[in-house]
Amino acid sequence: MKLKAALIQMKVVEGKEENLRTAERMLHQAASEGARLLVLPEMFNVPYDNSFFPEYAEEYPGKTTEFLRSKAMELDVYIAGGSIPEREGDRIYNTSYIFSPQGELIGKHRKAHLFDIDVKGGITFKESDVLSPGQESTLFDVDGIKVGLIICYDIRFPEFTRKLALGGAQVVLVPAAFNMITGPAHWHLSARARALDNQVYMLMCSQSRNMESSYTAYGHSLAAGPWGDLISELETDEGVLHVAIDTDRIEKVRNELPLLKHRREDLY
Amino acid sequence: MKLKAALIQMKVVEGKEENLRTAERMLHQAASEGARLLVLPEMFNVPYDNSFFPEYAEEYPGKTTEFLRSKAMELDVYIAGGSIPEREGDRIYNTSYIFSPQGELIGKHRKAHLFDIDVKGGITFKESDVLSPGQESTLFDVDGIKVGLIICYDIRFPEFTRKLALGGAQVVLVPAAFNMITGPAHWHLSARARALDNQVYMLMCSQSRNMESSYTAYGHSLAAGPWGDLISELETDEGVLHVAIDTDRIEKVRNELPLLKHRREDLY
Repeated sequence: MKLKAALIQMKVVEGKEENLRTAERMLHQAASEGARLLVLPEMFNVPYDNSFFPEYAEEYPGKTTEFLRSKAMELDVYIAGGSIPEREGDRIYNTSYIFSPQGELIGKHRKAHLFDIDVKGGITFKESDVLSPGQESTLFDVDGIKVGLIICYDIRFPEFTRKLALGGAQVVLVPAAFNMITGPAHWHLSARARALDNQVYMLMCSQSRNMESSYTAYGHSLAAGPWGDLISELETDEGVLHVAIDTDRIEKVRNELPLLKHRREDLY
Repeated sequence: MKLKAALIQMKVVEGKEENLRTAERMLHQAASEGARLLVLPEMFNVPYDNSFFPEYAEEYPGKTTEFLRSKAMELDVYIAGGSIPEREGDRIYNTSYIFSPQGELIGKHRKAHLFDIDVKGGITFKESDVLSPGQESTLFDVDGIKVGLIICYDIRFPEFTRKLALGGAQVVLVPAAFNMITGPAHWHLSARARALDNQVYMLMCSQSRNMESSYTAYGHSLAAGPWGDLISELETDEGVLHVAIDTDRIEKVRNELPLLKHRREDLY
């Protein structure tokens, strides 16, 4: 089976309205260019900064999720809505909502691993000061293809993508916002390694690089294939990356190099 | 703590005696250059070909293991003896023996994942026609530093290196013989990914490239650091790669980016 995906590397700024306008423009562009599964970046409606998350957070359904639902229906596409700050009761989550062309919510993922790092002279960020972690892994169906979704720091944990692959995932979407320290060091490596080990497509969708924001995303949205190959990537500016998914390629690789079959579950 | 390791990228040919002479020469070189932990490649005493394994196989103790033991004592070093075909009863294993400077066998690893692959127009190999798999993971102590050892295809399975890291491994040795198809595609990627995910040193020791053998090893013995960085590597000819291990670096990386602490064992 084949699937046309598009990663929307958009610039995120202060002002939810402006971010939704940017998303709208680029969703229209991606759909008009033929994509069926449209992916937005992590925290696409809010600057990636703890100080903004409470103010921008929405209960479901809310302004942003209704925007995504209506666009999916209008454009007749699947939309994996990157992520947004979700409010439920006293808590805020980093949450992705996925809508079908019928406007149905077919998946919802709350980032399960919170980004608390402190690289001396590099980058310090502590999501857990404001956000709560999710408790689930997330799989859904896109035109008969099984798709998983994890958010940014979730990719750091090989067990999590492995769980999706063992659950049948053929494609894993990763709305993300690596930074100028971890991006150059680990972005391509993490994507290609998860793709290779699990023999899936990994689609990493970043915000574009905005040097005016407090947290500068690395950009470089990319697709890695089931052989661990880098298929294509964007640079740092806004853009749409189209990716042709072909499940025959997954089958071929899994037949030639049967990694999932050769696992020794008795040993670990 | 610090440890000087050396990866011995030796040429392997037909003739066990000649391979032991090569190993001897290069072990002496590595020790005289100051290394304390000497690592040999996978199947260092036999051409990497199923047709040779039964003939070259040894019960323990045997010619090759006594050679390793005596060299460890003579040179006052630890030797991780790559691997050799081991015979036990009716079975043959791909086995690594590790000796201390006192001549004690401090570790023994039987390759747990057998290399059965069939890349169309590329490489076909089926270890399981001749070899039996091991049933253990292997950790040992080198001057107070915890070292794990896996063999070649074992690295394909993130769970296996993870198990060593959770068991306390700070360094993982990988005697290996990737080939001219999987080497360029996956050698550096696999080493760096396991190093990054587990925040350990990964030391990959290959045979040198011998274009006259039926199976051509990729070479490129290398060291990757706990930040997922490539520290250094050899090219394809014979050579000794010296690697300075520093456990302070592991601690620094694990404090800054606490991946092992952030695992969600409740989710997987």
